[in-house]
Amino acid sequence: MDNNLKEIFDLHKKGKIEVAPTVEVKDASTLAKIYTPGVAKVCEEIAKDKTKAYDYTIKGRTVAVVTDGSAVLGLGDIGPYAGLPVMEGKAMLFKEFGEIDAFPICLNESDPDKIVEIVKAIEPVFGAINLEDIKAPGCFEIERRLNEELNIPVMHDDQHATAIVTLAALMGSLELINHKDLKIVLVGAGAAGSAVAKLLANEAIRRELSIKEILVHDSQGLISTDRTDLDKYKKELAEISNQPKTQSFEKSLDGAHVFIGLSKAGLLNSESIKKMSPNPIIFAMANPVPEILPDEAKKAGVGIIGTGRSDFPNQINNALAFPGVFKGLIEGKINKVTDEIKIKAARAIFEYHKDKLEKKNILPSILDKAVPGKIAEALLK
Amino acid sequence: MDNNLKEIFDLHKKGKIEVAPTVEVKDASTLAKIYTPGVAKVCEEIAKDKTKAYDYTIKGRTVAVVTDGSAVLGLGDIGPYAGLPVMEGKAMLFKEFGEIDAFPICLNESDPDKIVEIVKAIEPVFGAINLEDIKAPGCFEIERRLNEELNIPVMHDDQHATAIVTLAALMGSLELINHKDLKIVLVGAGAAGSAVAKLLANEAIRRELSIKEILVHDSQGLISTDRTDLDKYKKELAEISNQPKTQSFEKSLDGAHVFIGLSKAGLLNSESIKKMSPNPIIFAMANPVPEILPDEAKKAGVGIIGTGRSDFPNQINNALAFPGVFKGLIEGKINKVTDEIKIKAARAIFEYHKDKLEKKNILPSILDKAVPGKIAEALLK
Repeated sequence: MDNNLKEIFDLHKKGKIEVAPTVEVKDASTLAKIYTPGVAKVCEEIAKDKTKAYDYTIKGRTVAVVTDGSAVLGLGDIGPYAGLPVMEGKAMLFKEFGEIDAFPICLNESDPDKIVEIVKAIEPVFGAINLEDIKAPGCFEIERRLNEELNIPVMHDDQHATAIVTLAALMGSLELINHKDLKIVLVGAGAAGSAVAKLLANEAIRRELSIKEILVHDSQGLISTDRTDLDKYKKELAEISNQPKTQSFEKSLDGAHVFIGLSKAGLLNSESIKKMSPNPIIFAMANPVPEILPDEAKKAGVGIIGTGRSDFPNQINNALAFPGVFKGLIEGKINKVTDEIKIKAARAIFEYHKDKLEKKNILPSILDKAVPGKIAEALLK
Repeated sequence: MDNNLKEIFDLHKKGKIEVAPTVEVKDASTLAKIYTPGVAKVCEEIAKDKTKAYDYTIKGRTVAVVTDGSAVLGLGDIGPYAGLPVMEGKAMLFKEFGEIDAFPICLNESDPDKIVEIVKAIEPVFGAINLEDIKAPGCFEIERRLNEELNIPVMHDDQHATAIVTLAALMGSLELINHKDLKIVLVGAGAAGSAVAKLLANEAIRRELSIKEILVHDSQGLISTDRTDLDKYKKELAEISNQPKTQSFEKSLDGAHVFIGLSKAGLLNSESIKKMSPNPIIFAMANPVPEILPDEAKKAGVGIIGTGRSDFPNQINNALAFPGVFKGLIEGKINKVTDEIKIKAARAIFEYHKDKLEKKNILPSILDKAVPGKIAEALLK
């Protein structure tokens, strides 16, 4: 095992989070207040009015990070045990960056109806539900139903936090390279790709960013209304995007200003980039290996290149958004994650970073602890 | 609100536990190890062999405290929201006394079959399941099925930790007052009472403590084989206890050496105590108000009086046992809580306290942080 790998495993020993008291159990008198008999007074208060759980329990500041382990990172369906290290990592980021407590719930269950039932059952402890690394299309159905049936915010952050950060990255990029009448080509119609496409298709955003065309490709080609192999979620994408007839990826790229990849390693090469409009904006976000590596993209003459990775400039990663978004949802008691909420969050990131924008610096660092506060503040307005 | 009450509510503000990172996210290089891309290596390792989750995630040291809020303290069925302060309190005690992490799972679901299904689904994150404050008889069925269907230890601590501590208290008391051919009267055939009765009925314990008769009463009278109103759990109690025919509580008390109450406030008075054998041992554990108050019991001439409360001497409370028992179960990878395990735990408490035994000091304090280690050690032998 090389040193780096050894260090990774050492850092993971026995897990990365702990559940600790916030009140010191210093003597019998304190114990009698925080545990029986004193705690009974608090229980009775909440029994009379369950909204008091927000004041006197962790419900007011705790997120469940729920997964079935069916779409973990780029690893696919590795299951709930193998997904746990990622969920612990998310819980760490929630605390470290959003000052929000989060706990992993990894489910030995992959049926969407059952997942909905279980999440509804565990809701009392949580102020919000973060769906995570659940594969499409199950994730769409689970999120839709939970949003309808629960009174706490539910967000699949692979979808929406990715969409928020991508939008913020695009806002920043367009400040630097002033393309107009944008043609955007997006590849990948899974959870993240669909959510990005839908947010960019929002009328207000189309107008503001001067978006003319959004073309969405999946592995079978352009998503368009003449395809007969689309599920209902992809049909929705066909409706909101701009091409009536299927065409090749190369044809779609022709004259495009923006490429957004949430697909697979190596999809893009310098030849394809040359078909695009001059100074194209490339977000190659496949994880862990992007659609094109930054060096190759630069050689092909891109205007801006971003990836999902922390070891290249311009990291476009949902970790920049989710701690702040959940912080805002919880603190503002906002129960639904609408387009308006997502746009507010994206704009907060963009505005915060506006003075520092450079082609190699289109977004704040995901380590910048000021970002979550800015996002939460924007959501509360 | 009086000062004490105000302090109770102040201590509960925003809840009593937090989820905190155990690894410092100090820079991008650490983040790349504990989160993407580094974490993927750990995920892959667990995907190959899920037992590795014990080494590299919180599964190796985390307990779920599961309730439906149907039998919280003496408050009854107050539901999962109102039960949460107690579950948070338990999580605090787990960490503070057992160095074990615990997280509350309060379920908006009271159907035993559904609870079993949900607990099985959330199992990947946890090394053990602590069922808590779930009413009888549902709790028996839930515990039995989870024990059969899960490969991690499952313990309803209202039953078994109470039984362990009661047994330890009885061992200590009998060192001080050497009754022989014991007649024990136990009142209350809910979760705790049933478990205490069954543990005392264990053959080895009967022999060791010279127990001749165990009489169990519920609110309808003596539990005996001629009753026609018993469910299957109470029928089991009738089988293991000693009376073929129902009789009055007063009759049962006649000449008894030990009274164990897990019933209701004020059940016992000085008149009834006078019917018992001289120097009787009284464990009046109804919560929060005992079957008889210590002062009244002493006036009636008891040998030893214990209650469940921290503000009287001789606190007989499951909090003395559960952190150590779960610590031992998890560290020893012990999957079933047998009578043998319970007896080991009780004996560990008794042996630890043997040199300090007095009639007003039959058990160690629940604040004594050495106890959980002693129990865990005994379980590992």
